[in-house]
Amino acid sequence: MALNTTCSFTLPGWLEPFVAGWDAPLASAEQRMALAVALAAENVKHHTGGPFGAIVIEEHSNRLLGVGVNLVTAVELSMAHAEMVAVSLAQGASGHWNLGAGKEVQLVTSCEPCAMCFGAVPWSGVRSIVWGACREDAEAAGFDEGDKPADWQESLERRGITTRGGVLRREAARVLARYASRSGAIYHPENSRGES
Amino acid sequence: MALNTTCSFTLPGWLEPFVAGWDAPLASAEQRMALAVALAAENVKHHTGGPFGAIVIEEHSNRLLGVGVNLVTAVELSMAHAEMVAVSLAQGASGHWNLGAGKEVQLVTSCEPCAMCFGAVPWSGVRSIVWGACREDAEAAGFDEGDKPADWQESLERRGITTRGGVLRREAARVLARYASRSGAIYHPENSRGES
Repeated sequence: MALNTTCSFTLPGWLEPFVAGWDAPLASAEQRMALAVALAAENVKHHTGGPFGAIVIEEHSNRLLGVGVNLVTAVELSMAHAEMVAVSLAQGASGHWNLGAGKEVQLVTSCEPCAMCFGAVPWSGVRSIVWGACREDAEAAGFDEGDKPADWQESLERRGITTRGGVLRREAARVLARYASRSGAIYHPENSRGES
Repeated sequence: MALNTTCSFTLPGWLEPFVAGWDAPLASAEQRMALAVALAAENVKHHTGGPFGAIVIEEHSNRLLGVGVNLVTAVELSMAHAEMVAVSLAQGASGHWNLGAGKEVQLVTSCEPCAMCFGAVPWSGVRSIVWGACREDAEAAGFDEGDKPADWQESLERRGITTRGGVLRREAARVLARYASRSGAIYHPENSRGES
């Protein structure tokens, strides 16, 4: 059998016009989170993946470098969490794996990062991370956040990465709860709800 | 500025013929590790990335589902560790994000998984993971493994994922040490050696 040698994923078609039409400012953490949460909600509405959205933004210019939504079921890649998608697209756009080369870049995600995304943050070069919903909100909706070190937030801080959680938490958690109430796929190997 | 909407990466050209020419059996953990370590060594030799290789293999048939090498600097994606590449390509080949759907799949990696790859393992559906070099070997060569839970190996076992480390450790560690002795790029945001 020939080996598969290329991996590729693309954002759903609704996303680019949606972001282009987003004319609210992106200066504060709350304003940035409003976009990340809106992306999560739109992703559910369009049935293109799980209830998670993320953006990568240049701190001082407020310039969007990358956006992402959860695409696990849409593109059949378990790593395609919103954070990984946003970071990878930002790296593609900037032409460099290190987003911290010469600029201060922030990752804003609608939900606390899972174990994989937590581990990916220091490798990406982002200098700060902001999240909305917390682990408890994700777990209440049936999601598994994985096993992070007990001091995961301090671990990022020790590496010079600023952390701030619970920004627009209620709004972000509402997207998760709404998804769960509609029995959306929980894409987890142990949970057949993800097999649709 | 238009958003980047597609992310794509491709294995280096040497890899497919190299694997096609690998005619040793892949039945035991040691035989599988020999290929993962050889991929790591070839990746260094061809200057296509860091000294890490991985394969995803169907347990009972010994069929290769995916192969990967570290491509961080080659494709400018911080997530492109050998394990993530091999798992993503295997998922692309099988058409499903869940590699555990109906089969027993093993991830064999030349080095203990970093924090990101550890977190990614449970989401991928693999049922077992085997690694060669250990954290200490990677750190001795200048690599940062990230912060995993103290009981990360037990964490995988609790999730039903079998773990076995140190397989062909000496051979795997030798590839890391050789890379370090030649001042290969350490692609880490805090380390300018990665900026070449």
